[in-house]
Amino acid sequence: MKDSRVLVTSGGTWEEIDRVRKITNTSTGRLGSLIADAFADRGARVTYLCGEAALRPLRPMEQVEVIGNVRQLGDALERLLKAQPYDCVVHAMAVSDYTPRAATTAEGLAAAISAAIEAEEQMPEGDDLTALIRDSIRGIGGEPGEKKISSSLEDMVLLMEKTPKVISRIKRLQPETVLVGFKLLVDVPQAELEQVAGGLMERNDCDFVLANDLASITGDTHKAMLIGGGSIRYLDTKQDIARAIVECVNVKKGRKQP
Amino acid sequence: MKDSRVLVTSGGTWEEIDRVRKITNTSTGRLGSLIADAFADRGARVTYLCGEAALRPLRPMEQVEVIGNVRQLGDALERLLKAQPYDCVVHAMAVSDYTPRAATTAEGLAAAISAAIEAEEQMPEGDDLTALIRDSIRGIGGEPGEKKISSSLEDMVLLMEKTPKVISRIKRLQPETVLVGFKLLVDVPQAELEQVAGGLMERNDCDFVLANDLASITGDTHKAMLIGGGSIRYLDTKQDIARAIVECVNVKKGRKQP
Repeated sequence: MKDSRVLVTSGGTWEEIDRVRKITNTSTGRLGSLIADAFADRGARVTYLCGEAALRPLRPMEQVEVIGNVRQLGDALERLLKAQPYDCVVHAMAVSDYTPRAATTAEGLAAAISAAIEAEEQMPEGDDLTALIRDSIRGIGGEPGEKKISSSLEDMVLLMEKTPKVISRIKRLQPETVLVGFKLLVDVPQAELEQVAGGLMERNDCDFVLANDLASITGDTHKAMLIGGGSIRYLDTKQDIARAIVECVNVKKGRKQP
Repeated sequence: MKDSRVLVTSGGTWEEIDRVRKITNTSTGRLGSLIADAFADRGARVTYLCGEAALRPLRPMEQVEVIGNVRQLGDALERLLKAQPYDCVVHAMAVSDYTPRAATTAEGLAAAISAAIEAEEQMPEGDDLTALIRDSIRGIGGEPGEKKISSSLEDMVLLMEKTPKVISRIKRLQPETVLVGFKLLVDVPQAELEQVAGGLMERNDCDFVLANDLASITGDTHKAMLIGGGSIRYLDTKQDIARAIVECVNVKKGRKQP
């Protein structure tokens, strides 16, 4: 592990609705900071890529980079992974899955749909109605991130779109790195959590996935499954998780470079 | 000012979309913390009611209370204002104007509208279509704040509703207090800012309104107008704003209690 290079992402990202409102993913960055510390304790040179409000590791990092939104995260990941090889990437960051695209009011949306139907002289169905709804959500606030949407609307209808999955780029840029992905669900049966984690692993070519359930997390008590290498390890605290990830990566790297 | 009681609200509130996503109002709480410090410097006993991430004043506060969402803010304000009289309330907090009520996808919304039209055998118009849209946005994520909405939807359509204006309760609970309201707009002509600030003052019985424009705020440079007492004061920095508010309240209180 000594002198190996590790990249740990941590904390949460945010996406702007307008200049004063944003959507954030709740994450303190505490687990990510403990993982970064655990690698640094073993002599690894750690790059810590984190959200603005994320807790920082206590041990000295090789490099700390702070990002805001998903686009900035993608840019930073790409730049770091192109600059040098990492033995391991632990992607613990809670990344915004959706980003605001446009906003209107229920009344504005109703008016736009009515106008479109009148112009076409018929009611669209199925995918056409879906497309009409998507196109009709606009008109206030301009582009996301611009100006400020009025505080005095009756309601707000916000259209959000999926953000690109940055995790999918990691193995494409560095096929040799050991990739640890994270999956957080809330209050689901363990079988469902395992299944969703398996899907994440397959889609993104992860070597390990840390699967956890928010309903089983309070303070340092943090029940999780570390899936990969043909087995599942069951863990109970953030400290256990950090240690287990370092060990699994060590074993994996040891096998690769005997 | 010595031994007078002042309540300063500061920072931002957040509203939950689900258990891992929330909508926040961007605010560091820096201006609010400087205002609290300025009052404390003059010997006032200051209660600091702030959002979770807000900067804290440097001077000793009589009391610090931390809240998360608008409901908690309303509860805390009500409790504090019923417990004791305040000579002045400076409501500098950036309060969420909208709170998530329900979410669906564009496709889900289209299907719900189509089904309703089929059942009624006609296309609703005007307010009926607006109501149908509002009722049709639901189906994922349960109640706001519950569980976690799936990360793999094509898009998300979020319906948000206006939050209750907590500022309107302040003078109802304490008609004698000097109330300073805040209005932040983004990149508008000064005349518009003045007009909107005037509306806030009238609706909520504010004695003063601090009107500012995000486009004129960078670090400590913070252009603002303090409107009230028959005049407008133009200010250039956060420190100027804090001093000006303390002075205006002093003069106003001095007049009331000669």
